Amino acid sequence: MPSSSGIPIRSTCEFKRIEDIQRVLGATAKAPGVRLSIGDDAAAIAPSQGCLLLLTTDSLVENVHFSRSYMTFRQIGYKAMAVNVSDIAAMGGVPRYALIALSMKKKEPAGNISRLYQGLNRCAQASGVYIIGGNITASSPSHADEGGFSVCVMLVGETTPYQMVRRNGARVGDILYVTGTLGEAAAGLEILKRSGSPRFSKLINRHKVPTLRIREGRALSTIASAMTDISDGLLSDLTHLIQASGVGAQLVSDHIPISPTLKHYCRETGNDPLPYALNGGEDYELLFTVPEKKINKLEALIAGRVVAACPIGTITSKGLRVQGASGRTVSVTPKGYDHLK
Amino acid sequence: MPSSSGIPIRSTCEFKRIEDIQRVLGATAKAPGVRLSIGDDAAAIAPSQGCLLLLTTDSLVENVHFSRSYMTFRQIGYKAMAVNVSDIAAMGGVPRYALIALSMKKKEPAGNISRLYQGLNRCAQASGVYIIGGNITASSPSHADEGGFSVCVMLVGETTPYQMVRRNGARVGDILYVTGTLGEAAAGLEILKRSGSPRFSKLINRHKVPTLRIREGRALSTIASAMTDISDGLLSDLTHLIQASGVGAQLVSDHIPISPTLKHYCRETGNDPLPYALNGGEDYELLFTVPEKKINKLEALIAGRVVAACPIGTITSKGLRVQGASGRTVSVTPKGYDHLK
Repeated sequence: MPSSSGIPIRSTCEFKRIEDIQRVLGATAKAPGVRLSIGDDAAAIAPSQGCLLLLTTDSLVENVHFSRSYMTFRQIGYKAMAVNVSDIAAMGGVPRYALIALSMKKKEPAGNISRLYQGLNRCAQASGVYIIGGNITASSPSHADEGGFSVCVMLVGETTPYQMVRRNGARVGDILYVTGTLGEAAAGLEILKRSGSPRFSKLINRHKVPTLRIREGRALSTIASAMTDISDGLLSDLTHLIQASGVGAQLVSDHIPISPTLKHYCRETGNDPLPYALNGGEDYELLFTVPEKKINKLEALIAGRVVAACPIGTITSKGLRVQGASGRTVSVTPKGYDHLK
Repeated sequence: MPSSSGIPIRSTCEFKRIEDIQRVLGATAKAPGVRLSIGDDAAAIAPSQGCLLLLTTDSLVENVHFSRSYMTFRQIGYKAMAVNVSDIAAMGGVPRYALIALSMKKKEPAGNISRLYQGLNRCAQASGVYIIGGNITASSPSHADEGGFSVCVMLVGETTPYQMVRRNGARVGDILYVTGTLGEAAAGLEILKRSGSPRFSKLINRHKVPTLRIREGRALSTIASAMTDISDGLLSDLTHLIQASGVGAQLVSDHIPISPTLKHYCRETGNDPLPYALNGGEDYELLFTVPEKKINKLEALIAGRVVAACPIGTITSKGLRVQGASGRTVSVTPKGYDHLK
């Protein structure tokens, strides 16, 4: 294929799209580290000396991850970038460069592509990321008038060998922390699917516009022994972390941070907020472990408002247990989101 | 999303797929330059000192770029990697690391995913590439029993500032060259769509299994003034090259390399082979320009069989013209493939 990054220049028809996209993005070729941006067979970057490059990719697919009935194209673009930024933040890295692979029905209005790129670029700018290439292709022709849109982001981040935080570093006795509050994005999606009630816009926004935790990830990069982001749900992502580390964990249910808005919503609907926080996906908060000897450093970051985080449990030798309000502990299994089921 | 590269570990169901994929790929974590492979929030690589990194992405979409009625999943995988390798080769680079983003219907048999990865990995191994991460997602649910499969490859290559060949370096008087022969892939696709006659398997294979031109691209990296790969068709990709360079070109139709097999096929079908060579896509040969003073170096490479290439025209100050067998020249416009039309 001709110019897969640079966004391909396959014809006059596509060429107009690329010009539209370049207008939205501005002059990324002059960005720090960028040697070659959109318009050639590949983009080129000059990595910072001694750095490691982090590579991640994640896609949003129409009617799987979003519906255009409740998300604007700007929001879809923003979120597609944000979920990738979350992966780099969870490694303690600095997000830097992105490629965008779009797939869409042939008659997708050009304005939707521009708006998608506006959203992608808004999140990119908020994250210090430059969009330097990509590709546009038709989606499978079985899609009729609606659907078939997907956006795949490949994000490159930088870190150093000493600051990269993996999932596998948790040790028995480490304290388990989480940033922000949990469960709101899942409640927001529930509201969108049921009625779209505008009363709980804060919950809806948590689903539509993931919080960026880049600063927190960087600050934690020399403190956390293990880290991941919460995308599938606390229990599910914690399971990945403890499996990678070969340890177990015990959560204290009373310590799991639940926002007043989610509590309010649950009072109205007669639901328990805890399952939202334990199993609801797409919080994009950071879940991390801290060794006893570094707790003071973390507490200083929390006191200095660099990181908003709270302890929710401890790392044990095996199993995954939750201590309830009664003091009784129970074994649990994750019920996180699996889009292939 | 959790572990977008690392291929995501979203559930037991997906976890089995990842184990299948890891079994196909083997131990990429110990590959040169790879600090972290599949299984975390991102992969990590250590770039070679002083290098530039080349980034490209390209997708193959079911019933747009291929049909499972005539391509095996191994072939789809091989080709998805090969078209990206072609972009890195066209920059004069060395392909190194890949991420794979798959999208498929929920009931896609696991064996198809394994076979796809076998094909991806076969091309990766032939190209010196390590697959270090990716993502699997469901395709839009409007797909019924068949279709909805797409594979997006993001490929990272390496080069140096002195060896990177762009499209914009062609100057008036440079000689225009092309590797290999042209038009066979387009004829192969025509055969597949019409009947699938096994008599012209060489043409069909040129569509299914693109030739890798990594060695040629490397050898040309200090000789070519401009280079691109031919994916949309000679005229179409030449147009991109001369537009980027701000020049024109004149082709000599008799010099355009057409294989005996394509000539044979065209004799049987009563067609002129030239339009296949000028406008047929997916040749994945290298199109490049060489300044007069470096022609000797190139001829030495050709004589030494490092590069199989032939001169097909010259760079002029403007326009795109073809000199026919009669000696008469005509202005031409590209009719390359545009999948969005």
